[in-house]
Amino acid sequence: SQITLSAQFYDSGTPSFNPLVVLELISDTKEEAIAWLLSRIRTPQQAGGAGLLVEQLGPGVSAEQKDNPNLFLVGASWERLLSGAEDVGLFKEYSDGSMRGFTCANNHNFKDFQGDGAGFLSMAECQYIIKHELETLRAKDETHIPGYSNAKLYPGKSIIRRLLSKGILIQMFPLHHKEELKRLSFSWYKKIKLSLQPLDEIRHYYGEGQALYFGFLEYFTFALVPMALFGVPYYMFDWEDYDKYVAFAVFNVVWCTIILELWKRSSATLAYHWGTLSRKKAFEEPRPGFHGVLGYNPVTDREEPLYPNAKRQLRIYLVSLPFVLLCLYLSLYVMMIYFQMEGWALSVHDQDPSFWTGVLLYIPSIIYAVVIEAMNLVYRYAAEFLTEWENHRLESSYQNHLVLKVLVFNFFNCFASLFYIAFVMQDMVLLSQSLATLLITSQILNQFMEAFLPYWLQRRRNKKMIRKVQKRRTPGDKELPLAEQVRLEADMSTYLGTFDDYLELFLLFGYVSLFSCVYPLAAVLVVLNNVTEVYSDAFKMCHVFKRPFADPAANIGVWQLAFETMSVIAVVTNCALIGMSPQVKAYFPESETQLILWTVAIEHGLLAFKFILTFLIPDVPKHIQIKLARLEFESLEALKKKVNRFVWIL
Amino acid sequence: SQITLSAQFYDSGTPSFNPLVVLELISDTKEEAIAWLLSRIRTPQQAGGAGLLVEQLGPGVSAEQKDNPNLFLVGASWERLLSGAEDVGLFKEYSDGSMRGFTCANNHNFKDFQGDGAGFLSMAECQYIIKHELETLRAKDETHIPGYSNAKLYPGKSIIRRLLSKGILIQMFPLHHKEELKRLSFSWYKKIKLSLQPLDEIRHYYGEGQALYFGFLEYFTFALVPMALFGVPYYMFDWEDYDKYVAFAVFNVVWCTIILELWKRSSATLAYHWGTLSRKKAFEEPRPGFHGVLGYNPVTDREEPLYPNAKRQLRIYLVSLPFVLLCLYLSLYVMMIYFQMEGWALSVHDQDPSFWTGVLLYIPSIIYAVVIEAMNLVYRYAAEFLTEWENHRLESSYQNHLVLKVLVFNFFNCFASLFYIAFVMQDMVLLSQSLATLLITSQILNQFMEAFLPYWLQRRRNKKMIRKVQKRRTPGDKELPLAEQVRLEADMSTYLGTFDDYLELFLLFGYVSLFSCVYPLAAVLVVLNNVTEVYSDAFKMCHVFKRPFADPAANIGVWQLAFETMSVIAVVTNCALIGMSPQVKAYFPESETQLILWTVAIEHGLLAFKFILTFLIPDVPKHIQIKLARLEFESLEALKKKVNRFVWIL
Repeated sequence: SQITLSAQFYDSGTPSFNPLVVLELISDTKEEAIAWLLSRIRTPQQAGGAGLLVEQLGPGVSAEQKDNPNLFLVGASWERLLSGAEDVGLFKEYSDGSMRGFTCANNHNFKDFQGDGAGFLSMAECQYIIKHELETLRAKDETHIPGYSNAKLYPGKSIIRRLLSKGILIQMFPLHHKEELKRLSFSWYKKIKLSLQPLDEIRHYYGEGQALYFGFLEYFTFALVPMALFGVPYYMFDWEDYDKYVAFAVFNVVWCTIILELWKRSSATLAYHWGTLSRKKAFEEPRPGFHGVLGYNPVTDREEPLYPNAKRQLRIYLVSLPFVLLCLYLSLYVMMIYFQMEGWALSVHDQDPSFWTGVLLYIPSIIYAVVIEAMNLVYRYAAEFLTEWENHRLESSYQNHLVLKVLVFNFFNCFASLFYIAFVMQDMVLLSQSLATLLITSQILNQFMEAFLPYWLQRRRNKKMIRKVQKRRTPGDKELPLAEQVRLEADMSTYLGTFDDYLELFLLFGYVSLFSCVYPLAAVLVVLNNVTEVYSDAFKMCHVFKRPFADPAANIGVWQLAFETMSVIAVVTNCALIGMSPQVKAYFPESETQLILWTVAIEHGLLAFKFILTFLIPDVPKHIQIKLARLEFESLEALKKKVNRFVWIL
Repeated sequence: SQITLSAQFYDSGTPSFNPLVVLELISDTKEEAIAWLLSRIRTPQQAGGAGLLVEQLGPGVSAEQKDNPNLFLVGASWERLLSGAEDVGLFKEYSDGSMRGFTCANNHNFKDFQGDGAGFLSMAECQYIIKHELETLRAKDETHIPGYSNAKLYPGKSIIRRLLSKGILIQMFPLHHKEELKRLSFSWYKKIKLSLQPLDEIRHYYGEGQALYFGFLEYFTFALVPMALFGVPYYMFDWEDYDKYVAFAVFNVVWCTIILELWKRSSATLAYHWGTLSRKKAFEEPRPGFHGVLGYNPVTDREEPLYPNAKRQLRIYLVSLPFVLLCLYLSLYVMMIYFQMEGWALSVHDQDPSFWTGVLLYIPSIIYAVVIEAMNLVYRYAAEFLTEWENHRLESSYQNHLVLKVLVFNFFNCFASLFYIAFVMQDMVLLSQSLATLLITSQILNQFMEAFLPYWLQRRRNKKMIRKVQKRRTPGDKELPLAEQVRLEADMSTYLGTFDDYLELFLLFGYVSLFSCVYPLAAVLVVLNNVTEVYSDAFKMCHVFKRPFADPAANIGVWQLAFETMSVIAVVTNCALIGMSPQVKAYFPESETQLILWTVAIEHGLLAFKFILTFLIPDVPKHIQIKLARLEFESLEALKKKVNRFVWIL
């Protein structure tokens, strides 16, 4: 995985270094700010700089007046990258096969470390290191960014974050590697095959966060296969006989508990082999948008903005929470209007059936579907605005609050009508019809909105760029020169993280686990959807979006919790559906009370069993636990010896 | 807190050192084994020994033929104790008020460290260090204990653990400190006062595990006060009107959720100030009774017995679990017999009431109470035997399995009849009577069995010893010489840990949280019980038992989980009691189904709310979190610098 971009780069006449990351400043950035920033980036670390290499991007063969000249390519020497790997606490494979924190002093004991270490780090790792070094490039005694007296700095403030929050730095993104990308996309989705996704290669190119998403998608698809196999005969032989679903509901409850527990173990195994499981998180910086009164952080004693926690809590509980509840109420209200409209349409059709009243029957569903989508969209913006306004110090805390807000509303919007049909109207035929409609339409919409539309837009842009270049070059040379390639990537849409991908999986998991017993084909549909999802997601990652920075995740984070919550709700709904089935009702001919009490008792038993299972199944497989314990034991022993030796030396 | 025993010790004519820990070997131990053990203990650490001081206890003034001569006193120099403090990872207060891991290199930056460090460590800490050093005294190339060819050793095996498991070492216990004990017992329970317990002093003398128990007892008592205050007017004005208990049940549910969350925070605060919160656990040794085939531990690569986990799991799931279930069934069966007997006694009394049939009414309850106690006792032995047979490698895992077994059975035994009365017989008057009877009798029994009986036995032994000594000494000198004092303490009963104390609190918590709405005085009774419990527990710790080794606990461990599980069950029972109250039933005159559905819905809502609360309330208070984060940040920074400097030095 040597980086071979340098060959291309010689063409532009700049000194030889591998460009890894691009910084784009606004086109009218003041000269003194640029000069200052470049010198700070170039200054060696010992003198308080970042010690990186940086060059301005040349105009390229197809330069136009409107092109932004302020694109900068950042790279670094191998030596610098290796010391950066130690700074970020990268875990690499050791000669004995275990994963250990990389240290320069100990470098030759790591597997695949040869010579000066060129090729030891993957390109994604190098880019992550450069991002980290740029973000931790701190102001010294500057009071503001040169030329921008309103862009205040104070000792220790991250320069890049201030440039970002003031809008001077438009974006910072890692470059694609054409050759590697071609190889990856070929082994990922271009060959028709029945093999698994190349998770290690995905991780190599995109980092652990992405790879875990695709790992989860794959796992989830395989986990659905037994349910799909179980569902097909149900669909074939018992379609109208929907009271046969008790066995299916029981299967559902067991299934959704077990797969989530097993995923935790698979995820831990993956994360161990990728070196993120035992990696310690560095101290988190405040996010760029965070503001407050300057003060001293009680943990680091560094100067940084402080914002009282009590004020944030007040904003959360007095504004955000009521707002979310209001939105939920609104959503409920819209749902009730939908059911009224549907009832009205049905009565019109019944009174005087004609072609037009037949069409009228579909109108309420269509309006409701459109309104739901619109509400989700508007709510998403409102949630982002509110979470921004809550002024969280850490990106992780911001993300958690945003996910929670969006999740609750989306869950409510998507499932409220199904809950109403199932438990208030108790109409199982309608429930299975609604479920099928929702699943199929949402899948078609999603695939279209997510992959084909952005692809089509990107393709148009690509072609325009190639045409532009070809005007000035010999035809037939389809490879873009570096300057054009960088400008093309700078124009690509930014990948906003795995949020929407996980949200989609979460809703699909909901359809399958909550109600699939009344529509056993749901699992089959979701499996089919997931298979195409793999391809469309892979495609959009490779060709539609800018390359994202690697995210050294050890697990799927808050989504694990979200999926587990859904599985608890699934126990409740499945038990309720079992209790409502005519088959079960037949056992309690006289007393409905007895039936309900038994259902509730069994539900409580299942919930208790679920929690006990969660305790009993260890989150990390035994062999990984042993490896982790071994590492910790060795580091404790080594520390003891080192401290002793250190004391002796002094 | 200087140790002043040495003055007494001069009398016996042995060299001056502070005796801290006593080792008692069986009286016919082979000479070569004793000589070898003493030399291993005395050998300096660099040469692979423990580097401690050890002397045989002299015969004393009242020596008798039957006295065991093989009592050894172990102590250490201050220097050795301080380096031991570093070995065990002791946290002490730093000059800036934070708690840090003690290191000898850095000793003068710790608060209260003066001169050579004499008096820096409390006696309990010294004893804990000596215990640790003795337990980690390992065999080198010995193949067996000299003189005992069947007591096999292998390199790395803990010598003390082998001596214990072969029965050569009878016991190892820390000595009391008469002066300190007198001061502690005075401030703890001898003066009548309304102040809090001296938790810091308890921790100073007995260690963190004990202090946390007394802290929890105190916290629990204070937490019960609002409920007791709430209960008294209920009792005074609405005694027979037991359907007024809805408000009380709601109060119960909220109360038991909140107090447990708040306890976690108090406990974290205490543990932080005692330095156990962030202390890292050392690698745990196998427990003395653990056996298996010799092999290499995959974590440490040390030679030790290995026992396959799968085999242990089989024993747990195929033997222990069925056994526990069988016992539960038996307990249920006994309960049913009790209710039949009671019904029969009642019918006899109703047919022909006389004095003797009146007495007969009490017979079933008495028999049942006796049978329950007997079953608990027998079961306890069976549980200990089974858990021992499961062959757990670690003491902590053994304890957890034992607690779980005993807890489930005790819960069932104590509460099954109440559940039956409440939900099957639905007789609230009988429920409140049974609750009152159970509470009062169990309290009286407990106090008697726990404190007064052992006290009385110990007192007799004490007096005998003093009389024996006084025969040979001038009368009036009531202070015992050291040799007699040690022999006296060696004869005292061994304190078996906080297990039974927590179990008692757990059952009391159950009575209060599950059913107290039908008997509002329960909280008042439990408060009274706890107040006397503080005194009797304090008394038995100071005067009945041998001093226990300190246990550096950071929380109440598995008991937190047990209490939280109880509070979840409390939500369910309280909701059920609310749903069954005539008051609530009046709202749903026609439909019982509606009533049950509403009750279940509210119960689910409360459970969800409870889990959300658990997430929202941080387990560690903010200011402690900041201190911990600060420490971690500093150690990370320091490590970076140290590694750099270290590399430079090399």
